[in-house]
Amino acid sequence: MPVTTIEWLDKQVRIIDQTKLPHELVYLSLSEVDAVAEAIRSLRIRGAPAIGIAAAFGMALVAQNSKSATREAFFAHLESAAETLRKTRPTAVNLSWALNRMRQVVAEHCDQDIATIKKRLMEEAQSIYHEDQKICREIGAHGAALIPQAANVITHCNTGALATADFGTALGVLFAAHDQGKKLHVYVDETRPLLQGARLNMWELMQEGIPCTLICDSAAGFVMQRRKIDCCLVGADRIARNGDTANKIGTYSLAVNAKHHRLPFYVVAPVSSIDFKITGGVQIPIEERSPEEVRTALGHRLAPENSPAFNPAFDVTPHELITAIVTEAGIIYPPFEQALAALEK
Amino acid sequence: MPVTTIEWLDKQVRIIDQTKLPHELVYLSLSEVDAVAEAIRSLRIRGAPAIGIAAAFGMALVAQNSKSATREAFFAHLESAAETLRKTRPTAVNLSWALNRMRQVVAEHCDQDIATIKKRLMEEAQSIYHEDQKICREIGAHGAALIPQAANVITHCNTGALATADFGTALGVLFAAHDQGKKLHVYVDETRPLLQGARLNMWELMQEGIPCTLICDSAAGFVMQRRKIDCCLVGADRIARNGDTANKIGTYSLAVNAKHHRLPFYVVAPVSSIDFKITGGVQIPIEERSPEEVRTALGHRLAPENSPAFNPAFDVTPHELITAIVTEAGIIYPPFEQALAALEK
Repeated sequence: MPVTTIEWLDKQVRIIDQTKLPHELVYLSLSEVDAVAEAIRSLRIRGAPAIGIAAAFGMALVAQNSKSATREAFFAHLESAAETLRKTRPTAVNLSWALNRMRQVVAEHCDQDIATIKKRLMEEAQSIYHEDQKICREIGAHGAALIPQAANVITHCNTGALATADFGTALGVLFAAHDQGKKLHVYVDETRPLLQGARLNMWELMQEGIPCTLICDSAAGFVMQRRKIDCCLVGADRIARNGDTANKIGTYSLAVNAKHHRLPFYVVAPVSSIDFKITGGVQIPIEERSPEEVRTALGHRLAPENSPAFNPAFDVTPHELITAIVTEAGIIYPPFEQALAALEK
Repeated sequence: MPVTTIEWLDKQVRIIDQTKLPHELVYLSLSEVDAVAEAIRSLRIRGAPAIGIAAAFGMALVAQNSKSATREAFFAHLESAAETLRKTRPTAVNLSWALNRMRQVVAEHCDQDIATIKKRLMEEAQSIYHEDQKICREIGAHGAALIPQAANVITHCNTGALATADFGTALGVLFAAHDQGKKLHVYVDETRPLLQGARLNMWELMQEGIPCTLICDSAAGFVMQRRKIDCCLVGADRIARNGDTANKIGTYSLAVNAKHHRLPFYVVAPVSSIDFKITGGVQIPIEERSPEEVRTALGHRLAPENSPAFNPAFDVTPHELITAIVTEAGIIYPPFEQALAALEK
């Protein structure tokens, strides 16, 4: 059973505070939307699918707690909360995708009484949550077919249970392959600056008993050159219509190295990570986070104080470097444009 | 004036303890060869040219302190010290190059009295030291010609004053270009796991007032993709006859990314870093250091305890990815084999 990263419990949003992992497993119960927004902003909860779910639960929380006497005040309250949540992180499209689903519920029930709308918002958040569980399993089943019977793979950033409502996307594919009895060995990029690979992937893989080896991000090229690697698996924060994919900083360098070594490079993500409104990666906003994250590691200073630093949280891998995109709807091969368009609802 | 990384002072080897930078500037005076060996092994002093100098001074120290009554005992004492020093680190060829020069002195003066041999060993160590100062300046002068009047460059690992007896190799080229009035901006790879970029390059560049920006190693590809970069400059720990170059782990990934973006990739090193005994990079021994260096950053734990980790300290960049090799003898372009062979003495 994968760890429960996020759930609705006792009228609150309960999450694992991932900034504390792997040192401590701490649960937080969030009872205000501002606390949910802060948790997303500071990466207590992260991973594109999980922040979509957190945003949906955040909206359910606002609805549940609202004391607004009129529908107009209630709607204004919801709209303001949606705006707060939307602004927490700009790159992962799942956030606005989930918020749009919640808003759609409001729009479709705007003539109902407040109690009914509250109930429907809670149901929608739970739907998003339970759909993600199902999606993880479907992605896992599709993706596992790409993994050889005995495989060495490289991953970047965390895409496991801690990034979703179930066992993950890219890491979920590996969990599914492992469950099928395939012999895996995972090289885990540490994923500077916030070390989601070192902290979270190693924690998840070791708990599942899957052989894994931590490497510095810059060692991935050498590992490809000297050891037999079968493929790379990464997640996605936003996929454009042409297949260009924004994912954690370092994904692009890894993809360039995979290309140089003629290794398959798989992007693994739910359809909700596809942004059908944009045609290419250049339109994806790239979050720049505090330089302090680069000057430090888990709060410990590495560089001279006040060192200028550039801290893009994501990069964009052009579709030419992507071998296939694995979704709950199946495996999509190039040319991506038409196949991705077919998934638009 | 560059900082004095290593020098012979008061009959001891005085070094900066680089493991303490950038937090503290601590000097150590080493009076025993075992202390010199420990300092090399634990990277208190590092950088291929600097560890060559440290080894030579280490031998001078042994000679100076030797109480051996017979030449045979004195030679055995020296030979044992050379073996201790040689075994500290396997990849940089400058270490055995410097030890061989010291041994050659012994061989050429084996019929002289011990006092004379001691004096000659001290002179030889000082020659290696002063030659490196001259070599740095010659390399800087040659290399600066490759740098545009206004340039954005990317560097990996420390190759400055802290790696040599003067202002460095790859970083020395930038110091020379800066002295010529060229407008530079240096993107500094942090260089995990031991963070020589974050700790040492940023410290040196900020002291010299050269604009610099620290980045995570994995962000270099994104920087190449989105910002105007003119070239990459790296050092070398060992260069094979065909130009294949061992350098700090991550150099190869950077070179692959430079190739993908059609950026010049320059290796900057003294002739003493060329190993004329080997024909290709596959023959270069790659030091594997403790997994603990990957599980931690400056001693602070990042990953779950006992996480398996792979920690190659170096990688090998094939000559095909190298645009030119800058040495004190000038700039060498492909095909490297013949031009490098011409440098063999």
